Amino acid sequence: MLIRLGYDIQFDVPAPLAFVAQLRVHSSRAAELREPDVVHVTSSDGIGGDTTDIPTSEYIDSYGNICTRFYAPQGHLRVWTATSIDDSGLPDPVEWGAREIPPQDLPDNVLPFLLSSRYCEVDSLSAVAYELFGAVDPGWNRVQAICNWVNAKVTFNYGMTRPTKTALDVFTERVGVCRDFQHLAVTFCRCMNIPARYVAGYLGDIGVPLRLPMDFSAWFEVYLDGRWWAFDARNNMPRIGRVLMATGRDAADVAFLTSFGSSTLTSFFVVSEEAEATGTPAIQTP
Amino acid sequence: MLIRLGYDIQFDVPAPLAFVAQLRVHSSRAAELREPDVVHVTSSDGIGGDTTDIPTSEYIDSYGNICTRFYAPQGHLRVWTATSIDDSGLPDPVEWGAREIPPQDLPDNVLPFLLSSRYCEVDSLSAVAYELFGAVDPGWNRVQAICNWVNAKVTFNYGMTRPTKTALDVFTERVGVCRDFQHLAVTFCRCMNIPARYVAGYLGDIGVPLRLPMDFSAWFEVYLDGRWWAFDARNNMPRIGRVLMATGRDAADVAFLTSFGSSTLTSFFVVSEEAEATGTPAIQTP
Amino acid sequence: MLIRLGYDIQFDVPAPLAFVAQLRVHSSRAAELREPDVVHVTSSDGIGGDTTDIPTSEYIDSYGNICTRFYAPQGHLRVWTATSIDDSGLPDPVEWGAREIPPQDLPDNVLPFLLSSRYCEVDSLSAVAYELFGAVDPGWNRVQAICNWVNAKVTFNYGMTRPTKTALDVFTERVGVCRDFQHLAVTFCRCMNIPARYVAGYLGDIGVPLRLPMDFSAWFEVYLDGRWWAFDARNNMPRIGRVLMATGRDAADVAFLTSFGSSTLTSFFVVSEEAEATGTPAIQTP
Amino acid sequence: MLIRLGYDIQFDVPAPLAFVAQLRVHSSRAAELREPDVVHVTSSDGIGGDTTDIPTSEYIDSYGNICTRFYAPQGHLRVWTATSIDDSGLPDPVEWGAREIPPQDLPDNVLPFLLSSRYCEVDSLSAVAYELFGAVDPGWNRVQAICNWVNAKVTFNYGMTRPTKTALDVFTERVGVCRDFQHLAVTFCRCMNIPARYVAGYLGDIGVPLRLPMDFSAWFEVYLDGRWWAFDARNNMPRIGRVLMATGRDAADVAFLTSFGSSTLTSFFVVSEEAEATGTPAIQTP
Repeated sequence: MLIRLGYDIQFDVPAPLAFVAQLRVHSSRAAELREPDVVHVTSSDGIGGDTTDIPTSEYIDSYGNICTRFYAPQGHLRVWTATSIDDSGLPDPVEWGAREIPPQDLPDNVLPFLLSSRYCEVDSLSAVAYELFGAVDPGWNRVQAICNWVNAKVTFNYGMTRPTKTALDVFTERVGVCRDFQHLAVTFCRCMNIPARYVAGYLGDIGVPLRLPMDFSAWFEVYLDGRWWAFDARNNMPRIGRVLMATGRDAADVAFLTSFGSSTLTSFFVVSEEAEATGTPAIQTP
Repeated sequence: MLIRLGYDIQFDVPAPLAFVAQLRVHSSRAAELREPDVVHVTSSDGIGGDTTDIPTSEYIDSYGNICTRFYAPQGHLRVWTATSIDDSGLPDPVEWGAREIPPQDLPDNVLPFLLSSRYCEVDSLSAVAYELFGAVDPGWNRVQAICNWVNAKVTFNYGMTRPTKTALDVFTERVGVCRDFQHLAVTFCRCMNIPARYVAGYLGDIGVPLRLPMDFSAWFEVYLDGRWWAFDARNNMPRIGRVLMATGRDAADVAFLTSFGSSTLTSFFVVSEEAEATGTPAIQTP
Repeated sequence: MLIRLGYDIQFDVPAPLAFVAQLRVHSSRAAELREPDVVHVTSSDGIGGDTTDIPTSEYIDSYGNICTRFYAPQGHLRVWTATSIDDSGLPDPVEWGAREIPPQDLPDNVLPFLLSSRYCEVDSLSAVAYELFGAVDPGWNRVQAICNWVNAKVTFNYGMTRPTKTALDVFTERVGVCRDFQHLAVTFCRCMNIPARYVAGYLGDIGVPLRLPMDFSAWFEVYLDGRWWAFDARNNMPRIGRVLMATGRDAADVAFLTSFGSSTLTSFFVVSEEAEATGTPAIQTP
Repeated sequence: MLIRLGYDIQFDVPAPLAFVAQLRVHSSRAAELREPDVVHVTSSDGIGGDTTDIPTSEYIDSYGNICTRFYAPQGHLRVWTATSIDDSGLPDPVEWGAREIPPQDLPDNVLPFLLSSRYCEVDSLSAVAYELFGAVDPGWNRVQAICNWVNAKVTFNYGMTRPTKTALDVFTERVGVCRDFQHLAVTFCRCMNIPARYVAGYLGDIGVPLRLPMDFSAWFEVYLDGRWWAFDARNNMPRIGRVLMATGRDAADVAFLTSFGSSTLTSFFVVSEEAEATGTPAIQTP
């Protein structure tokens, strides 16, 4: 299956501003890209004047994510890409036999995903997690039980999140967006000594009846039986067409765009769909 | 100056338990160690029976810290080292001319130290930080102003901390231990776009009149003019004899000992003093 | 000036449900009402069937508010009143000479308005308040300084509140609705030992150019020089036509409607305008 | 049974300071007092000079508690009483048949004890409470289940509380002092629509083997079958000799001593024991 990918994100930037983007497809999927997913950055006056290409540089952060830096001038900023990726077309694998690995046997670089992080208060939710999931069969089954619980107990509502909302807030408020669902599930997994990391990427609605405006998505991964597996407490079903962009301990490590000052988002458009589904490219090259 | 370093930490371990220690002197100081600061781990029945050496393994985490893993059997656990280090004997450098580097010019690997982390809610405290320090001259002067503020406003009290205490808690409660002082100062620095990281290490009372029981200590570092500089919102004065062990975004990344289950601390002893000051080794080889 | 007052609030009630309303004009204004502001409660099937009057009972709570209780059957619930009140037509009084009364001289029943309450963490914000307002001239001037600060620092945004949002949340997030502004100002006043209470009532846009959909409003009162005075950190200007309905320590004491179970708000309409402004009654008698 | 009651509390007061005490035996027990429990307040220079009686005044707050006000001069302050009370000598009543009263049938003045208050976040803990106690038989049984849960899950530790600690903090931290146990149990009861109020009073160790230094104590009451009943999530057993002093929504309403400024507690002594147990009065008249 070929999946068309892209985004077109626009801002008004009132004064020169440093950005870091995590908008590249993850290096583990790079070989399947039909065209490089270059992060194009341009600036204009927003009223028809010349458009200038803004230079970018890239680095790999400590989680293996490709990060793109650029310094935006005052004006109208556009950040976009358009590419497509070969995909197996298969839903997320399900492996009920996958076992938990005790902490002493985990690889070194997996250990940080057992600890507390900005949005995942392992310390505050450990007692609750043990009460809810301590008696559940361990391994894949326990992770699935955590997803089922979060999915059943938390209500999706676009308006009911905020930048500072943590797993504990989600646990008490029981409402949020996809990142909130994943933060709570990630935290519960870590409380049970199951390594869990937050994931951001593309996820279209391939194979599901509901059609929503396309957006980036968050899910999470757990480490069982020697590898990372995708779980999604928001959708809570195997899905087709996840394209991983970045992973980290939580959304504090994974942000599509971070800027060190203020700007105003004026337009946001994401494409993630089966390529055959439309005849025209989703993102128009300017 | 020669500084004697060491620790002897003992636990009762009720059931086999995985540990990760961050108890090695940081690699940047390794060349100055007179003897390797091996993390010795032994286990016994605690009532005179045989003592067994517990094997350890080491790895470097993403912050460059040396981490020591071991799997402790049920019994009485002892973790210790004894070494000494050559030190300049000079107090922390003070460089009033050191300038802030704008985000767009920071090295890639410094950027994470501008963001929110478990104990440092940059998002929640940004408005406060700008109100307090926005009009202060930038650079070293602003960091010092932050330290002065935290040092003046927060009261030290051993009993008044808790594992979940964040910078925002310190800001409202105005009481804590050294890690709490540093978390608030680190957060304020990041709010002002000054990279700041949490540091743990040895700090004796060399050159200061007060003699307290020796302990590990926390301070922090800021990135100005192309390098990291030590600051200490708790003591708020240049000190002699800091020996860095580990750095990270906050205390969630830097823990002398992390275990993935419960144990009981039974004894805790740290040495960090000028070698000439005593005639006998501080940590007795068992 | 004659002010037309009323509301029409409708719910779908899925199962019989107990309600308490604080929807009566405060007893201190009762003599000025042209007609009694009876809380009418009716229930219907919502699709044209018969409408039934639901009996109510009333009591005065410990703050002197008139509370109306009723037990709603399953169905479509309507709560409404329509009345008008004589008003001086004068803006809120301003008395720069009004002095703070030290705690030892306050009337007994004013003392509770110095303490922490659900949304007003006097304990957590005291240090901040002293830093911000400790050097400000006391009395009316200090309360006005508090209103100025809150008004300048907090941004109004209908979408950015939540039922659990406290004064400390407002202080860190700097965004909210009118109740959030008042909670922060109330808390700062109490921190400075100035009694402050939360107020809910009618407030139209008489005398102000901006015309927003009419709604209930929140403001607050402080006790200076032996009486309560209206302040409003959201609008931060003397206004014409406030009609007090209920007061309490904070929004936990003052809720237009409290129900002990779930229902769905389907319609919400409030009138508060100069009577001459329209020729027809704002609330139609069903 | 005759129970000897009293206290002797001393402070250093650095500057004149207003106090409110809730140190009187509750009016519901007044008839059983052998002698009036006058709140004696004296001030001295603390080094042998004259002792001055400080005048007090009293009022009844909105919860029916007797409050004692006084204005302490700079110096050494002593607040004390010594009395005794006739008591049935019977343990707290246990009535397994006591039923919950639905909100619509509760007396007006009981309704506030269903709502959120400073330390009892009914809103934040409702989902948790329903998950834990929704399937438990209602009435006395459900309240007892709540006490059992809190008593089993929370560990008593004198050092692990703080003035701002709420029920949600207790739920996540699982450690605290008696007030913390009661706050969590009170909150869970309210979440289940069972009115619950916080109680402070004398509670000695009559009939229990353990002898601790005598102190005031906190417990709570729930409203079942038309009356208030004592429960105690800390001790979780019927006890002999509770003497109620004050009730309120939580500890923000009930404080043995509130002052509007700073002072230093220098001595704290409470007596609550069977009168025959000692031959000399516990509190010496100065």
